[in-house]
Amino acid sequence: MIYVVGTGSGKIDGMTSEAFEILKSCDVIVGYKKYVDLVKDYFPDKVFITNGMRQELERCEQALKFAKEHNKTVALISSGDSGVYGMAGLMLEVAKDSNQEIKIIPGVTAANSAASILGAPLMNDYVVISLSDLMTDWEIIDKRLKAACEGDFVICIYNPASNHRPLNFKKACETLLKYKSPKTNCGYVRNIGRDGEEFEIMTLEKIKDCEKIDMLCTVIIGNSQSYVYDGKMITARGYDLGKNIQS
Amino acid sequence: MIYVVGTGSGKIDGMTSEAFEILKSCDVIVGYKKYVDLVKDYFPDKVFITNGMRQELERCEQALKFAKEHNKTVALISSGDSGVYGMAGLMLEVAKDSNQEIKIIPGVTAANSAASILGAPLMNDYVVISLSDLMTDWEIIDKRLKAACEGDFVICIYNPASNHRPLNFKKACETLLKYKSPKTNCGYVRNIGRDGEEFEIMTLEKIKDCEKIDMLCTVIIGNSQSYVYDGKMITARGYDLGKNIQS
Repeated sequence: MIYVVGTGSGKIDGMTSEAFEILKSCDVIVGYKKYVDLVKDYFPDKVFITNGMRQELERCEQALKFAKEHNKTVALISSGDSGVYGMAGLMLEVAKDSNQEIKIIPGVTAANSAASILGAPLMNDYVVISLSDLMTDWEIIDKRLKAACEGDFVICIYNPASNHRPLNFKKACETLLKYKSPKTNCGYVRNIGRDGEEFEIMTLEKIKDCEKIDMLCTVIIGNSQSYVYDGKMITARGYDLGKNIQS
Repeated sequence: MIYVVGTGSGKIDGMTSEAFEILKSCDVIVGYKKYVDLVKDYFPDKVFITNGMRQELERCEQALKFAKEHNKTVALISSGDSGVYGMAGLMLEVAKDSNQEIKIIPGVTAANSAASILGAPLMNDYVVISLSDLMTDWEIIDKRLKAACEGDFVICIYNPASNHRPLNFKKACETLLKYKSPKTNCGYVRNIGRDGEEFEIMTLEKIKDCEKIDMLCTVIIGNSQSYVYDGKMITARGYDLGKNIQS
């Protein structure tokens, strides 16, 4: 059996009980080294199979091998939700025609954990977009950013920048600024649920040049109804609270 | 102290450990009756304050009263994630100027739990849209559906239909069909994590007239890369697995 498990945002108590129990009862835990390091102290008796970034395919093949050839119960882990830019899809694809039973165990994805730290920015319709152009052409990403503006969605950005693509976030903000007010409220959270967690709320024109934005960040760009009150980013849902409530 | 807690999809082990510990240690649990019923057996010694649908404002006022006037630790609960169409935003708005400390505790939202049941449909960029036009005009919802098509996003639909709005889902599908192939792969999950959980995968032209779609459903509409294999809905992320993998 292979479970593809989302371990939630960094900290161990951000995992669901279902995910925790599976990691406790499985034989083998497979994952990207950095994510396995976040959980391994809690499951000391497991066999751990880890590798590096961009070795997702090999990870799935290892999971399949342990489940199929050695008849082990395997947990293949992703941080956040395994179904959002995680291992779920690739595992299903790699296991095609293998008759291997696979179960996807969801977790709290970064859009939702970041939102909880910033306030309540996802109270209305939102999009989730990755700025990684390793597997999606930039033209498609750019088209999606434009469509997200046209729909006045709140926009959650994953993988905003990395060493390989340092300018993607700035480029994305330039596209957003063609359609959205430079005063649009935005926020980022860095190292969600981990040591060094930090966040900041600012305007779109400021976040464009914010040097903190890197691959450890999740960014949320407000819609036209998002506002900031007392250090919290809130997207109004539309309750009638009287005119004096919304500043 | 007020915690606004997302309890995840229906079943108790879909809750994060953090959420569970807060419900265990708080004094008062406030929530919509149906959601409180899902958790109350696990926390028998609590004071429960429940009310009906559309009484969200009163729920927040009760939470604030117990925290502020009676100095209690209050957990205000939402199913799924409290920050997605949940109680987080309204609670922050109601508590303005009260100096009340409020902490948002995220949970697994229905987009992610539904996706895990259908397969891996959210492996690429997606939008979350509610079809409830109680607080958002239909013109805005319709504009967002159109924008979601233009960006070729996977589309997660919350509140697809209800007794008050039986035709919204059909209307939404008619908009989607102007832009998307009638053969687009889609799925719904009904009663996620609860008794009577069921799901089905079908095409967009079929789901438009599917009589199962009601307020207990979450619907996921694929993008142009979503396909179905062995009963699972998968959105390709773009890994190079060789041409023979993707059917």
